Amino acid sequence: MKKLINDPKNVVNEAVAGFAAAHADLVRVEFDPVFVVRADAPVSGKVGLVSGGGSGHEPLHAGFVGLGMLDAAVPGAVFTSPTPDPILAATKAVDGGAGVLHIVKNYTGDVLNFETAADLVSADGLEVRSVVIDDDVAVKNSLYTAGRRGVAGTVLVEKIAGAAAERGDTLDAVAAVAEKVIANVRSMGVALTPCVVPHAGEPSFTLADDEIEIGIGIHGEPGRERIKLEPADAIVDRLLASIVEDIPFVAGDTVLLFVNGMGGTPQIELYIVYRRAAEVLAAQGIEVTRSLVGNFTTSLEMQGVSLSVLKLDHELTALWDAPVQTAALRWGR
Amino acid sequence: MKKLINDPKNVVNEAVAGFAAAHADLVRVEFDPVFVVRADAPVSGKVGLVSGGGSGHEPLHAGFVGLGMLDAAVPGAVFTSPTPDPILAATKAVDGGAGVLHIVKNYTGDVLNFETAADLVSADGLEVRSVVIDDDVAVKNSLYTAGRRGVAGTVLVEKIAGAAAERGDTLDAVAAVAEKVIANVRSMGVALTPCVVPHAGEPSFTLADDEIEIGIGIHGEPGRERIKLEPADAIVDRLLASIVEDIPFVAGDTVLLFVNGMGGTPQIELYIVYRRAAEVLAAQGIEVTRSLVGNFTTSLEMQGVSLSVLKLDHELTALWDAPVQTAALRWGR
Repeated sequence: MKKLINDPKNVVNEAVAGFAAAHADLVRVEFDPVFVVRADAPVSGKVGLVSGGGSGHEPLHAGFVGLGMLDAAVPGAVFTSPTPDPILAATKAVDGGAGVLHIVKNYTGDVLNFETAADLVSADGLEVRSVVIDDDVAVKNSLYTAGRRGVAGTVLVEKIAGAAAERGDTLDAVAAVAEKVIANVRSMGVALTPCVVPHAGEPSFTLADDEIEIGIGIHGEPGRERIKLEPADAIVDRLLASIVEDIPFVAGDTVLLFVNGMGGTPQIELYIVYRRAAEVLAAQGIEVTRSLVGNFTTSLEMQGVSLSVLKLDHELTALWDAPVQTAALRWGR
Repeated sequence: MKKLINDPKNVVNEAVAGFAAAHADLVRVEFDPVFVVRADAPVSGKVGLVSGGGSGHEPLHAGFVGLGMLDAAVPGAVFTSPTPDPILAATKAVDGGAGVLHIVKNYTGDVLNFETAADLVSADGLEVRSVVIDDDVAVKNSLYTAGRRGVAGTVLVEKIAGAAAERGDTLDAVAAVAEKVIANVRSMGVALTPCVVPHAGEPSFTLADDEIEIGIGIHGEPGRERIKLEPADAIVDRLLASIVEDIPFVAGDTVLLFVNGMGGTPQIELYIVYRRAAEVLAAQGIEVTRSLVGNFTTSLEMQGVSLSVLKLDHELTALWDAPVQTAALRWGR
């Protein structure tokens, strides 16, 4: 294992400390328990948004804390759900009097620990609602999941729900917007290489030199099938076919196309993938009106990519375009 | 070699096509010869900024085309200088009547081809000036260089000179600002793994499982020394000591600290590195007032990092903070 780390036990705390130092204009960090919170939290009268999950998917979630997106992010150990304690603390820290929305990826540990935290804080009279993201069409159930997994579509949920909260929507309305994104986004990924969890020290799985894993999870958990390496265009066609047929997306739809790098993929490859995906959608009469390309929901240094497609309407488009000021997404104002 | 590509010969053209499709609001692309140009170019009365170089360092340079930064970027083949022809075409395309600045990384091929293009276009009466970036303190001469190499400091030159051009500075003044950044920025990197150039199909060099290369170049060319893997903090201390002693940076300086991923490094590691670098500078009385962390000058999927430190004054700070609207850097407005 070759990594730019010190003691594997300190990876998350040291990274969070570095993140907070680099982005002191946007966030502050608490260490006991660990969470990252918007610098001006709590924002009075605004619904607070809290997300979190295992570390190793950066910039998810801390990179999305700031104006127009999350109010707090709770990082667990690498690929390990955060416990209820920091979720509870983060929820209280962002309570501006309008309630708090938990944005949870569908993994058993995440769902359970966010529920526990919500129950505890609700007992104190703070109103909490939760949405669970399950955008990955690759598998129905998985190693860590009952039902589908939550993957890169999470970024789109956090951005759009964050914009709704920022414009002053009520807790019910913000939750409804988040559910609308969840209902309209689908994702699927592919891995060319595994990744190494620091405290494990070994790759989480192995792939032969000519093999790829279609439908990979963001923790390296198995996907649909292992196949021989193919040209990028053929791989994109496989992923996109599974995504498009799922909702299904149909001619006349306008969509956001999101090409997400898994962490170790050169940017040049992400754009080769984007090119093909945009062409294929256009050929089906599906119009790409917004795009996002980059490493936004990663699996440490894994090489691979996921595609997400979100069906847009006027409201979702306007909320996507609304100003955002976070470490990893920033536009407007 | 496992890559998300089609025919290795088409890597750059396909990636540029994808880039242009994803960022049609910011850029347009020409294919014969290939260059990426700001959507609203030429901007009348504004100095035009053109940079370029071998591909494989994305988002450098196309990711920095847009308001407040470059007017055009000229990508060569992977790790290969662009020929004079597309540089010439890009230079003409951004001519808004106030002259054009070429921002060139110090590699023999880049310097020669930009010079040739400048000579040709000057013969047509277009005023061109050039600046050459040589921020890498690792080696004095190298495989592809007389003198020091130009590496990640290029991003800072392009951002700050771009802001000077955007505010209406003359060609001489923009060139002077660029030279001021070059005089005040120093960089050094480390590689944990090599990368594979698509048309080569093999790693450009090899490192043992417990070896790292200190002072690596952005094309995998040799650095200062190979050493055994060390904790991140020890590696940061080595890089930073070489950078700080060079100008030297001294107590009382205010600086921008830039932690640049080489493409395949997990973001969590970049922030572990940032944390240490900021601590070490603070301990020396050097105040970090601006920061940048991410994959901005890459070597395909290489794992590693470079540190850059730029000494700031009021002017450089204001130009750094000025609005920028590019695919890879975006703030303000």
